[in-house]
Amino acid sequence: IGALSQLVFYFIPLNKILFPLGFTFSHREVVQSTKEAMLALQGRNPVVQPLLVIIQAGEDDCLLEINKKMAGRIGLNITQICLAKECSEDEIVEEVLKLNEDPRVHGVYLHLPPAYITSRVLNTIKPEKDVDGISDLNMGRLVRGDLSKGFVPPIASAVLDLLEKHGIHSDICSYVLKVWVRIPHSSLQNTGVPLCFCLAPFVFFNVVGSCSRWLQEQQYRPWHLHSLKLQPMTPVPSDIEISRAQTPKPVDQLAEEIGLLPEELEAYGRSKAKVRLSLLDRLHKQPDGKYVLVAGITPTPLGEGKSTVTIGLVQALSAHLKLNSFACLRQPSQGPTFGVKGGAAGGGYAQVIPMEEFNLHLTGDIHAITAANNLVAAAIDARMLHEATQSDKALFNRLVPSVNGVRRFSPIQISRLCRLGINKIDPASLTPQEVSTFVRLDLDPSKITWQRVVDTNDRFLRKITVGQTGFDIAVASEIMAILALADSLVDMKNRLARMVVGTSRSGQPVTAEDLGVSGALAVLMKDAIKPTLMQTLEGTPVFVHAGPFANIAHGNSSVLADKLALKLVGCDGFVVTEAGFGADIGMEKFFNIKCRASGLRPNVVVLVATVRALKMHGGGPNVSAGAPLPKEYIDENLSLVAGGCRSNLRKQIQIAQLFGVPVVVALNVFKTDTQAEIDLVCEIAKECGASNAVPCHHWSQGGRGSLELAQAVNEAASRPSHFKFLYNIEMPIVEKIRTIAQQVYGADDIELSPEAKAKIDYYNQQGYGSLPICMAKTHLSLSHMPDKKGVPTGFVLPIRDVRASIGAGFIFPLVGTMSTMPGLPTRPCFYDIDLDPVTEEITGLF
Amino acid sequence: IGALSQLVFYFIPLNKILFPLGFTFSHREVVQSTKEAMLALQGRNPVVQPLLVIIQAGEDDCLLEINKKMAGRIGLNITQICLAKECSEDEIVEEVLKLNEDPRVHGVYLHLPPAYITSRVLNTIKPEKDVDGISDLNMGRLVRGDLSKGFVPPIASAVLDLLEKHGIHSDICSYVLKVWVRIPHSSLQNTGVPLCFCLAPFVFFNVVGSCSRWLQEQQYRPWHLHSLKLQPMTPVPSDIEISRAQTPKPVDQLAEEIGLLPEELEAYGRSKAKVRLSLLDRLHKQPDGKYVLVAGITPTPLGEGKSTVTIGLVQALSAHLKLNSFACLRQPSQGPTFGVKGGAAGGGYAQVIPMEEFNLHLTGDIHAITAANNLVAAAIDARMLHEATQSDKALFNRLVPSVNGVRRFSPIQISRLCRLGINKIDPASLTPQEVSTFVRLDLDPSKITWQRVVDTNDRFLRKITVGQTGFDIAVASEIMAILALADSLVDMKNRLARMVVGTSRSGQPVTAEDLGVSGALAVLMKDAIKPTLMQTLEGTPVFVHAGPFANIAHGNSSVLADKLALKLVGCDGFVVTEAGFGADIGMEKFFNIKCRASGLRPNVVVLVATVRALKMHGGGPNVSAGAPLPKEYIDENLSLVAGGCRSNLRKQIQIAQLFGVPVVVALNVFKTDTQAEIDLVCEIAKECGASNAVPCHHWSQGGRGSLELAQAVNEAASRPSHFKFLYNIEMPIVEKIRTIAQQVYGADDIELSPEAKAKIDYYNQQGYGSLPICMAKTHLSLSHMPDKKGVPTGFVLPIRDVRASIGAGFIFPLVGTMSTMPGLPTRPCFYDIDLDPVTEEITGLF
Repeated sequence: IGALSQLVFYFIPLNKILFPLGFTFSHREVVQSTKEAMLALQGRNPVVQPLLVIIQAGEDDCLLEINKKMAGRIGLNITQICLAKECSEDEIVEEVLKLNEDPRVHGVYLHLPPAYITSRVLNTIKPEKDVDGISDLNMGRLVRGDLSKGFVPPIASAVLDLLEKHGIHSDICSYVLKVWVRIPHSSLQNTGVPLCFCLAPFVFFNVVGSCSRWLQEQQYRPWHLHSLKLQPMTPVPSDIEISRAQTPKPVDQLAEEIGLLPEELEAYGRSKAKVRLSLLDRLHKQPDGKYVLVAGITPTPLGEGKSTVTIGLVQALSAHLKLNSFACLRQPSQGPTFGVKGGAAGGGYAQVIPMEEFNLHLTGDIHAITAANNLVAAAIDARMLHEATQSDKALFNRLVPSVNGVRRFSPIQISRLCRLGINKIDPASLTPQEVSTFVRLDLDPSKITWQRVVDTNDRFLRKITVGQTGFDIAVASEIMAILALADSLVDMKNRLARMVVGTSRSGQPVTAEDLGVSGALAVLMKDAIKPTLMQTLEGTPVFVHAGPFANIAHGNSSVLADKLALKLVGCDGFVVTEAGFGADIGMEKFFNIKCRASGLRPNVVVLVATVRALKMHGGGPNVSAGAPLPKEYIDENLSLVAGGCRSNLRKQIQIAQLFGVPVVVALNVFKTDTQAEIDLVCEIAKECGASNAVPCHHWSQGGRGSLELAQAVNEAASRPSHFKFLYNIEMPIVEKIRTIAQQVYGADDIELSPEAKAKIDYYNQQGYGSLPICMAKTHLSLSHMPDKKGVPTGFVLPIRDVRASIGAGFIFPLVGTMSTMPGLPTRPCFYDIDLDPVTEEITGLF
Repeated sequence: IGALSQLVFYFIPLNKILFPLGFTFSHREVVQSTKEAMLALQGRNPVVQPLLVIIQAGEDDCLLEINKKMAGRIGLNITQICLAKECSEDEIVEEVLKLNEDPRVHGVYLHLPPAYITSRVLNTIKPEKDVDGISDLNMGRLVRGDLSKGFVPPIASAVLDLLEKHGIHSDICSYVLKVWVRIPHSSLQNTGVPLCFCLAPFVFFNVVGSCSRWLQEQQYRPWHLHSLKLQPMTPVPSDIEISRAQTPKPVDQLAEEIGLLPEELEAYGRSKAKVRLSLLDRLHKQPDGKYVLVAGITPTPLGEGKSTVTIGLVQALSAHLKLNSFACLRQPSQGPTFGVKGGAAGGGYAQVIPMEEFNLHLTGDIHAITAANNLVAAAIDARMLHEATQSDKALFNRLVPSVNGVRRFSPIQISRLCRLGINKIDPASLTPQEVSTFVRLDLDPSKITWQRVVDTNDRFLRKITVGQTGFDIAVASEIMAILALADSLVDMKNRLARMVVGTSRSGQPVTAEDLGVSGALAVLMKDAIKPTLMQTLEGTPVFVHAGPFANIAHGNSSVLADKLALKLVGCDGFVVTEAGFGADIGMEKFFNIKCRASGLRPNVVVLVATVRALKMHGGGPNVSAGAPLPKEYIDENLSLVAGGCRSNLRKQIQIAQLFGVPVVVALNVFKTDTQAEIDLVCEIAKECGASNAVPCHHWSQGGRGSLELAQAVNEAASRPSHFKFLYNIEMPIVEKIRTIAQQVYGADDIELSPEAKAKIDYYNQQGYGSLPICMAKTHLSLSHMPDKKGVPTGFVLPIRDVRASIGAGFIFPLVGTMSTMPGLPTRPCFYDIDLDPVTEEITGLF
């Protein structure tokens, strides 16, 4: 009992012990060290301004005045939020919430009567900004002695400071830290010491600390990525079974692990989130990571697994080699998901999860594109109808209506007037001729190039003409190509405005801005521009963003996703992005179009090959979807493999070398491949100039199966890359086409149809001559003839027609016929797709 | 200094003080009180089972064995997760995360070596499940003495218990609580007392407490809603300016305030979230709130503000009267947003915010409907093509392909076989006749009723036929009507499968399931079925869900949103839902179709009137969109007002009374209305049988302007409602139509076209005779003639045609011509819509 009585002692407030002993707070010294910390901080980051926000009720008291002066001497910025003297808890909370969200604020201090500082109020303050250390979480951290995250409350600091100064043992200090909390502020105040005055420097010190922590968080660091364990089974289950067996991390956790701030994230459910572009500003000083492109040899109609290689590679890099890395993938069209192809989230143990989210609506970007695209189409047809049925005056009165007696042009209309050379802003001042020029787009019905879109494989829409236009699948929309190439919201908006939808009867291009629809398009696309964050089966980050049709557009994921990812991985990290189709198409466009738009330079090309495709190029029989594989593809056949390696594989390696980038060949191993076949591919690939060539087993083993590839890529990335474009952008259009045809495809020459020639002349005349070229060619051969495998030679590439996507910014020559609207087979995938309405599990997606 | 030495004392662990004094833990008593708490808990909730999950590394030790036995005696469920002895931090964290998400788990206990319990591990445990009280947050709460949320750590409980038992003063107890944390577990263990054994009952006690807190959170309670302040300005700014000036609460905060659990929420960005239907299971015992329908008198073409009244009313109820209340609104089509009408999020100071999110993609539901609808269309045309070009055998081989040598029917195909009366599951056993019956839907091209849709006002698509079908606006899709009427995922899936897309040549209906597409439709719609949570300008909750076209469908928001909201507001709360068009259409369908489907019964009808519309019905001149209002509508004119009240208003009140529900008339006041006009409307409305009639000023004042309405509704809801349907569902179709025409519209009779008669015969023969009726009639008159205002009499209602939405579950007679595809005007709204690409602010939405 005697011992217990000791407990009672602690009910005498600490200050009653300390102050009578003659200890005083030496705030001058604290001020000094805060000043030094501030100077150090600003030395490293000259523009940074630590900011403390004080929330107070009523006017300044004298203490505040003194403290503000002291802050001024230190160079600390202070903002005061003065609420009414009788403010409510709700009002305080509302202010705190705003400050929590504001990245300029590093500390929040409540200068309020104690009764106002309720549990709700103090726990509303974000712990990272609670420089007074009063929130429950910070107090708990302090008690546990974890000072790496929270803040030491100023009172505790003051007491500690005192004790230390008097040579008190440091163990006691840490103990005092733990009991500081029981010192009521009021009792300290009763001693007559102006407490707030004494404590202010400690608060200031914490604000500087908060700011410097905030800056540190924005620096590059190896991620502390919590990877998800894989336990691959044999035989490998279906894709949806594998995906469903793995629980994805909450996307906000993944975001935190890779250094995103909460305010940069917009969650869409549990496992997807859009990432705000403000990240690029925050990290603009951060050096980019290494940039890796995954391309492929000329594929069979079954596909050779570029997506699985991409995903397997980042799984290996992030989860196994512990190197920050990101995969950037295209968003798949829903058409093929329900049609013939099935999902596109990778496969086996190299997938993006949840795969059904990836394959379905995702975050609605393709739907936004559909809505925007079809608004343009409706605007074209409506405008033509109204121009055909109304006088100039009637059109003008409707287009520039009098609202409350005032007529005004909208900003979009003023842009059009400028382009027409009419520099007037008062509608009344236009001459009748100017009115006519302004109101009549005078679209030539036979020269409308805009199409409606749906995201469905719908064969019947191929032949339809609605008003003046037909139907494409949504991913063929120019708006999708713009989304993929834009590098900011401003850039996207300008590109949308520039889109040419047709030609007037006098031969002038008519743009989306002429239709008055460009602002609405930007509004419809404002969320779509943010890439979507997901994760692989091993919990490593993936961006899914944009998926332009590889047939008529450039078939690459977005510039913005790559840029965000390159900042997030930091200088030692990797961003792995995929180009559609074979390297002759996807990679060529990646370099000449996407890299030109983005200014990014690749470090390594991974070239995906399969024994199956190599055998086909080596002279094996025809491979077609739906039919059983001929036995040459199942049994070992080294001569076919060697033939394929020495023809198509060698050529595709050489194409990559045209651009000066090191090539690593990734052999995507199937279970029927023999060791001798695998060894042979790797051997010949290296002979043909690949930096390295390795087999990958990601499909059956996940990241562990791609470790060798990851190491090879890491090594290749450390070598110098001498990237160069294939052609100068200022070359004439015909020369650019010829360069691609000869140097990449191996054609003897090109042959332009009269239509193609006329179009090129028209584009030159309109000033579109210096756009890059986006070839629309079959992916099944290096030539324009899908059945010519290996390395076709002695052919002339026929250019049937030439079109232009002025907003996206490329000219696309048509080599043969390209369908822009797939159809459904007799038994589409949807027969197998089902939803269990009780468990909400999806079956049949593969 | 002498005083300071006292501090040192505390480095002697407490146990060294306590145990030598002969105190022992009396765990029997704790076991006893835990048992009692358990019994009390189960008395209130017989099915509930508190569950403690223990995470351990390796096998059970003897302590665990003893503790498990003790738990058994108490009746507490324990689940053990046995990790490997050498498990990693990641593995522990992964398990903890799963337990955090699992609503069956009430407590998590880490039975792990101290080195394993890192800061990351212990702070991963959700504080609500941290029954050991070791997370920083719980520790901070304890230190601050806030025991309402956290858990007292078992060691502290044990010490306290001891002290109390020995009559130690309670102030000391609370002090000990605050210092308990410095007792290292290890030092206690060194005393030889089997610590875990002693402490287990305290853990168990916390688990029971956690479970009971969890249950309590699920009970009805008045919300602690943090309402957003409004400071209305004069003149009232534009809708987008008002919306943008208000910062919405984070949607997760709103969700927490209204009693949603985090796991029931799927955020879509910061200000929207989908709510999971599992909520209905969790709250199934909770009594519903009061159900209020907002309907209107026959409107002018300008609309009379039902949405603003709805929003103003919930703002008044929630933010001012502090009664839990929810608005349930329809999601608007994007067509009108960019066309003529502008946004639909309310207006003035009664809006849903952010209004641009509401008006644009929202959470993608309409896009999902478009995708699902067009997949059906593509499936129809593809199937017809394949049937026309292939033999029975070829079709069968493709529809039921041999996969790895095995042929199997998919579940969707087995359903079709059942419907055909072929009870076989082996494809080989079908006779050639059965094969033919199975593979041939044999759709009659002239009898396909399915249309493609786009969510754009696109006049040119009206006249188009693609394959066999035409185009509607997306909200006219039957899938939208299904979304609005389904009351679970199972129900939606069944309705989707039942949709009739056309008729075979032999006259049999062909369904979506026959096309094999029903599972894929359910997959596409799996997220759309969850209502979207948003908020009003005053921070009160709103569900936005479904928006079937009022022209040809029932024009009401979803059954599921209403059901979820009725549970969330609890028995004293209000759910206010809106019916499209005038009461003769929207309200009639709400009662006869929606309430029949949902089983819900309304308590009050709010009937919205405006002086403008009343003057029109009283004989005022024509009102049309775009033209200036005649002066009768601007100047006081009591006789026109009285005429409108005694005709259309009286009739609409009587219609509501046909259904036995009390009516409150809400006069939506415009600034041109005079006090005498306002008083006159309220006076006559009450004479005509309204329970009450009050003016509302929500547009200019927000919720405060609707306080009188809120009080009137609250009062009317406390009166008995004697709801009854207008017709018995088993009446013949013709009689049901006649009843509506005569009793609601005031027609003398109906007149059926021969086509309508034939259709009715066909529907009767197919067994669709007992579906409710969804009239497709103009909303601009009680009759079928839009220019007949007031209460038209002496007319016969012509039924031009009759159609059926079998999946949605109604027959819809066409009265006159209804456009299902709006067009764009010469100067669509999109001219003014723009996005500032730097601030990301939207302008021009109104």
